[in-house]
Amino acid sequence: MARVVVDVMLKPEILDPQGQAVANALPRLGVSDVASVRIGRRVEIEFEGEADLERAREIADKLLANPVIENFQVKVES
Amino acid sequence: MARVVVDVMLKPEILDPQGQAVANALPRLGVSDVASVRIGRRVEIEFEGEADLERAREIADKLLANPVIENFQVKVES
Repeated sequence: MARVVVDVMLKPEILDPQGQAVANALPRLGVSDVASVRIGRRVEIEFEGEADLERAREIADKLLANPVIENFQVKVES
Repeated sequence: MARVVVDVMLKPEILDPQGQAVANALPRLGVSDVASVRIGRRVEIEFEGEADLERAREIADKLLANPVIENFQVKVES
């Protein structure tokens, strides 16, 4: 079994209200040194045999990310 | 600026219907060697000064993760 992780994040120019809501709540926790919070998705794909990065990239492109507003990164995790 | 990443995933014993839906769609893409897909959240916290892991852990614990059904991992990203 080998695990490939796909990190899907909103593009930097796209507003992230969910992350903004977390950032706005931080002062109530006494946190004042956070500049920004961005929230995306982490997808763990477990391959039966070897990790297949090319295949994972295809899955991300077709099923996991919206290319209009999101970027993704694919990496093998040990 | 320093970035801390919080990965929030459902505990292994908790069903993940969203990941299951992606896994079920894979055969239609011609992918048959994926054993499982799990979908969680990736939160990027940008600190103004140095990365503060202890602080990020506190934020994750209080705001980002539901400890009943989720685990989280905190790491500094360069």
